Amino acid sequence: MEFKNWMDEKVLKIEECLRTIIKEEKNPQKVIYESMNYSLLCGGKRLRPVLMLGTYELFKDNAEEIIPFACAMEMIHTYSLIHDDLPAMDNDDYRRGRLSNHKKFGEATGILAGDGLLNRAFETGLEAALKSKVEITSAVKALYEIAKSSGADGMIGGQIVDIYGHDKISSVEELKYMYSLKTGAIIKSSVKAGAILGGADENQLRALETYADNIGIAFQIEDDILDVTSTQEKLGKKIGSDIANDKVTYLSFSTIEKSRKDVEQFTDEAIKSLEMFGDRAKHLIELAKYLTNRDH
Amino acid sequence: MEFKNWMDEKVLKIEECLRTIIKEEKNPQKVIYESMNYSLLCGGKRLRPVLMLGTYELFKDNAEEIIPFACAMEMIHTYSLIHDDLPAMDNDDYRRGRLSNHKKFGEATGILAGDGLLNRAFETGLEAALKSKVEITSAVKALYEIAKSSGADGMIGGQIVDIYGHDKISSVEELKYMYSLKTGAIIKSSVKAGAILGGADENQLRALETYADNIGIAFQIEDDILDVTSTQEKLGKKIGSDIANDKVTYLSFSTIEKSRKDVEQFTDEAIKSLEMFGDRAKHLIELAKYLTNRDH
Repeated sequence: MEFKNWMDEKVLKIEECLRTIIKEEKNPQKVIYESMNYSLLCGGKRLRPVLMLGTYELFKDNAEEIIPFACAMEMIHTYSLIHDDLPAMDNDDYRRGRLSNHKKFGEATGILAGDGLLNRAFETGLEAALKSKVEITSAVKALYEIAKSSGADGMIGGQIVDIYGHDKISSVEELKYMYSLKTGAIIKSSVKAGAILGGADENQLRALETYADNIGIAFQIEDDILDVTSTQEKLGKKIGSDIANDKVTYLSFSTIEKSRKDVEQFTDEAIKSLEMFGDRAKHLIELAKYLTNRDH
Repeated sequence: MEFKNWMDEKVLKIEECLRTIIKEEKNPQKVIYESMNYSLLCGGKRLRPVLMLGTYELFKDNAEEIIPFACAMEMIHTYSLIHDDLPAMDNDDYRRGRLSNHKKFGEATGILAGDGLLNRAFETGLEAALKSKVEITSAVKALYEIAKSSGADGMIGGQIVDIYGHDKISSVEELKYMYSLKTGAIIKSSVKAGAILGGADENQLRALETYADNIGIAFQIEDDILDVTSTQEKLGKKIGSDIANDKVTYLSFSTIEKSRKDVEQFTDEAIKSLEMFGDRAKHLIELAKYLTNRDH
């Protein structure tokens, strides 16, 4: 199957599942369901769940078995965006071209919608651990990997460094540390969870960690480049906001040309690490290229 | 063992475990660990984890096996208090007699410390599912029960009703609905998780649900009474705040005397539902009485 068709099919299945997860019941708390769905069902790129499915397919053909786990990852990603946008954090009024959650529903609901999505992510994963055909120990190991990556030692820690330590970042190594937590951690656990659910051995898991580390940093550098070179329509948010906010980015330590070369090099490293999987890795290879040839 | 000794011993073991859960590593995000521990290790009553351990002991003697699950519940309770206190929610500067998390660490860290504790709750529970001697399917079922109770269909939903629907509460039934979600849901899942981990059958589970429903509402009415009759020292927060904030409470529909009688009646119902467990239920019986004979 051609990559684009493969990707479209995966995104379609993820969207289908996401739409069933939060039922908008007509009870006194109904605004919480509405606000959770507002952010969850807004057509993001679904990269993390697609990565999980793509990795799983290195090992097994029935990716539909693990879609709830993939959706759990998307819920964690979505909750982090809602909380990032809050006034006490980045104070962003727009996300993906429309009002951010707290601008649409108020700050209290924004906080609780984020909480609700994080909670629902684990609820969904635990339910899938009980009901899917995946062996339960593998399911719990995958969920544990996801939980470690999204917590204080991972994504939340990266958010703290971004908020409080940003001014102190004085080297590209420090910046990469922050990126490895803030965006890298859950990209990596998406890949690792797919591998664990698929039954990867230690060697395969290590190779996939290398893949994930490299696409994670390439993805983030590409984001920094896009903030300068893309357009507001394509990005769904203001461009040049990093410069306007005096934010340290990869471009603070490098030219655009050099940064583009680095993206290529990290992408090449990622692809090289997949050699052992032969032709089964073709979609993950294309995914690595796709991630870093975006215009949004 | 006398109830007080039993309770003290359980709280001690819970505190011991809680202290090991968040290591204050000296990395760039260290403030997140500090802020999470600030709220987690402040000597709350630990009622929810004690309830879980007490219920488990109806079935098994090795309660130390499930302490990480009990601590996960305490982390969920703690995160909910941190987010409740935020300016966009109840805007409380004090909690348990000292500065609330966001007043101490700033609002962004308060939000993230809450997120981190919710996340760490599941991390801790999933790790225990893999490493403890509890049968893994029971562990996952217990965690799933916890997750359902703390999300949008449970505690978070109750918080939404409290914030947005409070003015519309015009009957004691509507108030009880809000209480059953906001505080009742995780009290109930503490009991249910203990029962599931202990291997309860359907009949036993139903009896314990009745116990939990009744102590949950009794506990909440007692809280409403204490807000009027306790002192600031004992309560660790301002008394009379419900009246000052024009909040609908149980006392909006009832006198103090009638409310006290209702507390007694719910407590009696709770105790009655434990009959089938005979002498093994003695600590849960005392716990029901203790919950509703507090002065704080």
